[in-house]
Amino acid sequence: MAPPTTVDTLIHPDWIVPVVPHGVVLDRHSIALTGDTITALLPRDEAAAIEAREVIELPGHALLPGLVNCHGHAAMALLRGYADDQPLMPWLEQHIWPAEAAHVSEAFVADGTELAIAEMIRSGTTTFSDMYFFPNACAATAQRLGMRCQITFPIFDFPTAWGKDADDYISKGLALRDDFKHSALVTVVFGPHAPYTVCEANLAKVATLAAELDTPVHIHLHETAGEVLLAVEQTGERPLDTLNRLGLLGPRTQCVHMTDLGDQDIALLAETGAHVVHCPQSNMKLASGTCRVGALLARGVNVALGTDSAASNNDLNLFGEMQSAALLAKLHAQDASALPAADALAMATINGARAMGLEDRIGSLEAGKQADLIAVDLSGPETQPLYHPLSQLVYACNGSQVSHSWIAGERVMAERTLTRIDQGALTRRIDRWQQRIADKAR
Amino acid sequence: MAPPTTVDTLIHPDWIVPVVPHGVVLDRHSIALTGDTITALLPRDEAAAIEAREVIELPGHALLPGLVNCHGHAAMALLRGYADDQPLMPWLEQHIWPAEAAHVSEAFVADGTELAIAEMIRSGTTTFSDMYFFPNACAATAQRLGMRCQITFPIFDFPTAWGKDADDYISKGLALRDDFKHSALVTVVFGPHAPYTVCEANLAKVATLAAELDTPVHIHLHETAGEVLLAVEQTGERPLDTLNRLGLLGPRTQCVHMTDLGDQDIALLAETGAHVVHCPQSNMKLASGTCRVGALLARGVNVALGTDSAASNNDLNLFGEMQSAALLAKLHAQDASALPAADALAMATINGARAMGLEDRIGSLEAGKQADLIAVDLSGPETQPLYHPLSQLVYACNGSQVSHSWIAGERVMAERTLTRIDQGALTRRIDRWQQRIADKAR
Repeated sequence: MAPPTTVDTLIHPDWIVPVVPHGVVLDRHSIALTGDTITALLPRDEAAAIEAREVIELPGHALLPGLVNCHGHAAMALLRGYADDQPLMPWLEQHIWPAEAAHVSEAFVADGTELAIAEMIRSGTTTFSDMYFFPNACAATAQRLGMRCQITFPIFDFPTAWGKDADDYISKGLALRDDFKHSALVTVVFGPHAPYTVCEANLAKVATLAAELDTPVHIHLHETAGEVLLAVEQTGERPLDTLNRLGLLGPRTQCVHMTDLGDQDIALLAETGAHVVHCPQSNMKLASGTCRVGALLARGVNVALGTDSAASNNDLNLFGEMQSAALLAKLHAQDASALPAADALAMATINGARAMGLEDRIGSLEAGKQADLIAVDLSGPETQPLYHPLSQLVYACNGSQVSHSWIAGERVMAERTLTRIDQGALTRRIDRWQQRIADKAR
Repeated sequence: MAPPTTVDTLIHPDWIVPVVPHGVVLDRHSIALTGDTITALLPRDEAAAIEAREVIELPGHALLPGLVNCHGHAAMALLRGYADDQPLMPWLEQHIWPAEAAHVSEAFVADGTELAIAEMIRSGTTTFSDMYFFPNACAATAQRLGMRCQITFPIFDFPTAWGKDADDYISKGLALRDDFKHSALVTVVFGPHAPYTVCEANLAKVATLAAELDTPVHIHLHETAGEVLLAVEQTGERPLDTLNRLGLLGPRTQCVHMTDLGDQDIALLAETGAHVVHCPQSNMKLASGTCRVGALLARGVNVALGTDSAASNNDLNLFGEMQSAALLAKLHAQDASALPAADALAMATINGARAMGLEDRIGSLEAGKQADLIAVDLSGPETQPLYHPLSQLVYACNGSQVSHSWIAGERVMAERTLTRIDQGALTRRIDRWQQRIADKAR
């Protein structure tokens, strides 16, 4: 394909890491963007022939696809550090759930999501998946701020602030899906919370609808060994097998956590084409267990990465997750060569896109894909010297090196300044939430 | 004690985390410095009465003791990311050792140490421990740049670029100790590399000299289960027991790594008063194993934190180590309440000071101690809202929030700009090392 002769934006970094093909680092290449699309990646010498309305020189920087955060609860950023270092059940029952019951509203979700988006863009994420109450507020906030997201509308058997029963959640969720069906940024998919909060009849209903609408399903699964044991006691079946029996396990299914994995589970995931979303820092902080990432990848299961919420992490920084995933995999496999840097980066990009069914649009830097990309400044002392850009990105960056970010061709951050978010005004609103929530807890 | 009436510097942050007393956060307090010393911590209202030559307002910031990096090989920053994702022995034998053999010199150590110090100050460290060839170059660089450090001069049975046998290393090391005996910043202690590289006769010699000179001993110990098994095969004894039999285990001893720990080992450490230096990220990245931090602390063993070298980490950022230590401890103990934030921060400050025998001078913010302190900006979206400063410091900061740093009362960083290091000139020198090392590897 001949390169375009006129484009909107031409960027000249020192390195491009396209992620596809796997493990490749392009030296002295440039990228051309027009509208919301990547029009070309080409050697810098050839790029000189292209006319561009805007030329951006980024010496010392690497360009890579925007990161894809495949699991989280963005608005819970308002509960960051609210009750740390607690055992799981007291944390939920005595702190998080009461705080949510007292405060969660559309306004809470809108402001919490904006805070989360500010943090995610500043650490390189351009697409996030979200499961929370008032998903309409999350979707509207993401759309307004130019952020790409997968909204997984929550489904429970019981009432919450957002709905009264499974049918109500599903009907509200499908209405939301209709509202955003023309959105270029927001997709709306099923989010049955977990097998222990949604009964078999309702899970079967989700399976039917998801198949009919060809829409992904995002579900918490096998988060802890205790949860799996309880299910086996109560049903005689592991939750993964239950999902499979109900027709809910397939290439549309995103299984989040999966710390309890036998070889037969891995075989079933491989066979059905279901995706796994690994949340290493949340799994460590809540002492949930360790996902067998190496074994999953070896069997060809697609594994993506997620931060989970800032209440159990406590950041929404995928650079930290890539590093934690790689280090944890090495420790767990007792093999320092397990989960090399290129694999960790793929998990945080193309694998996330694939899990969401968006791999033809995002997750790598390829001509024709959406212009979702980030620039990472590798010139600081923390990332010098530089023998292998992939090593530096995964093992030496902490996210604060992300200097620029584009989503669908729009520059949402330049030189670490957010273009769509007024940080001062946001901080003042977050301050008010903090006071309200802390006062109530006293 | 009445507060002083005139001081050099008065700092007004939003919070002070003195570390001693444990877990305390002071609201609306100020700190006064005169010369190299902390003269007072006092309520802000009382501080108004003090005259100061310089007043620094730090709204939105927390002040805490400078972090203490209790184990590393600073100059190896020049090999950051040089050969990642390799199994341990090929990594050492085919990559790191040949690169060291080809390049390590006084100039390598001086430049590599300066790079490491730049990175450490930018991520909140004010004291580091170092074991590497040409410790004279490391000591001189730290002294020149106003950085506090413990030099652990290396001792091996065999020749290296810096010495020919144990007697030679010891005699050079003790000469270095003499050279720096009047230094306020640099202490020089024994660094027998490991029980598998230093024979019993030489370890016994170190034990005798260390007791006579009342000087700490820093040693790699039980880094992997394989190393311990081999020792048991060869000697019938676990290395920790060997050290104890040789009189080398006591309150002056810093045992680095200790991933292989039985209950009897923990009892022996507790009984002898030896210190453990935990390097969580390096242990994970090299797949070495997991130190039983919770069990050690429960028995009263002092546990400090170290980064190890940038070649096996790949950063020298103690904020990352605090978070990794806390998360790994929770996962390992299967208890989300294990190693709470205050304990992780103590490991990175006062426990490190205690391990080095410097707890009367550094490691906490107390009147009379050295003015080694850092300011951390908690006003960004990554650290908002803020319910508990300790949670934010350990679970939400990545080191890039450190804005100011003082060592012995001297401001070595202000608004993230290093005052003693010319970053441009340093980058150019590091570039030249990178080219030389990468060329040779081709």
